[in-house]
Amino acid sequence: MNPRDWQTYLVTQESLSGGRRSLEVVTEAIAGGVDVVQLREKGTDARWRYERGSELREVTAESGVGLLVNDRVDIAQAIDADGVHLGQSDIPVAVARDLLGPDAVIGCSTSTVTEAREAEAAGADYLGVGAVYGTSSKDVPEEQNGTGLELVAEIVDAVSIPVFGIGGITAENAPPVLEAGATGVAVISEITAAEDPEAATRALEAAVSEGDGR
Amino acid sequence: MNPRDWQTYLVTQESLSGGRRSLEVVTEAIAGGVDVVQLREKGTDARWRYERGSELREVTAESGVGLLVNDRVDIAQAIDADGVHLGQSDIPVAVARDLLGPDAVIGCSTSTVTEAREAEAAGADYLGVGAVYGTSSKDVPEEQNGTGLELVAEIVDAVSIPVFGIGGITAENAPPVLEAGATGVAVISEITAAEDPEAATRALEAAVSEGDGR
Repeated sequence: MNPRDWQTYLVTQESLSGGRRSLEVVTEAIAGGVDVVQLREKGTDARWRYERGSELREVTAESGVGLLVNDRVDIAQAIDADGVHLGQSDIPVAVARDLLGPDAVIGCSTSTVTEAREAEAAGADYLGVGAVYGTSSKDVPEEQNGTGLELVAEIVDAVSIPVFGIGGITAENAPPVLEAGATGVAVISEITAAEDPEAATRALEAAVSEGDGR
Repeated sequence: MNPRDWQTYLVTQESLSGGRRSLEVVTEAIAGGVDVVQLREKGTDARWRYERGSELREVTAESGVGLLVNDRVDIAQAIDADGVHLGQSDIPVAVARDLLGPDAVIGCSTSTVTEAREAEAAGADYLGVGAVYGTSSKDVPEEQNGTGLELVAEIVDAVSIPVFGIGGITAENAPPVLEAGATGVAVISEITAAEDPEAATRALEAAVSEGDGR
């Protein structure tokens, strides 16, 4: 399970999945070639995430797709996930590493070069960087759009672990994120809210490959 | 660390501690003879609870007082707590037992006889039962006050693990909870919001011993 191999990264949110279960969206995204799935499901309780996570572990394991759990090391261990994704207000990366051991994948959300260097030094395997373009729920004016891409480029320069852009990324605007040096892109609604999550994943994968090849 | 030895059980909530840190309240409660502390701190993020929990582990360990963590098995492991307390919407008791091993103390909140029997069968070491009297933030009419005590008595009859009453318990109304068969009482604001948490803990301890002796 090597984050350097990931290009398309899906973050789940059943409440943004058009009435479908995350299991359905993830199954379609896997058919579309998604590389890794993060169980996030903000605003839900731990029991629900444990149950949903157990379902997602089955379909991801069958297809060799990575599964990470947002925030909760204990849920990750309980469902035999490949690792966790931690934010700046979650338990520290080094503490999660102690609990999970050297083989787990640990990612960390960073929005400054200082946070990025700290996360790498603490043992993170990859970084999530954003918001690259703002998010669909929080529109960023056109003239500010450069900022997120510059941040990606600065952090890619500052660390040696893979960087994934996140925040408002679509198939259309994904190529510049790769050109800025990101290894791949993470999305929520671009896949979860798509009428056809499989096609949306393929389109994202094609856009990322285009950006990566330039 | 045997829950049968606990009579006074403090659940922390810094936001209900009159501007004091939970560390200060817990230190005073320990001086007053509290038997076990649960790190709860509803509405705070995991990093904050991890940091506060590390502080509480120091003072509780020095005095041989038990320390449990609400909901989070990973934070309990990270701060070397004695166990966890789980609600009905947290990860299942059996899953927590797998992660923590046989020596950890695992408690479970239950408000029906069915839940209580299930928690015991799943490996819980003790039960929290309530709300016995409602809580200070949710007043229960006088005529309904019997219900909580009856629930405690029914659950005590149905299981063989220790039961702790919770919800609106004060030094004044604690004795009937013990008379109903509870091993002890759990409180938040009766200690955290007290002008003198040490004295409040002593008063609660005295009330529990009175109820226990009848």
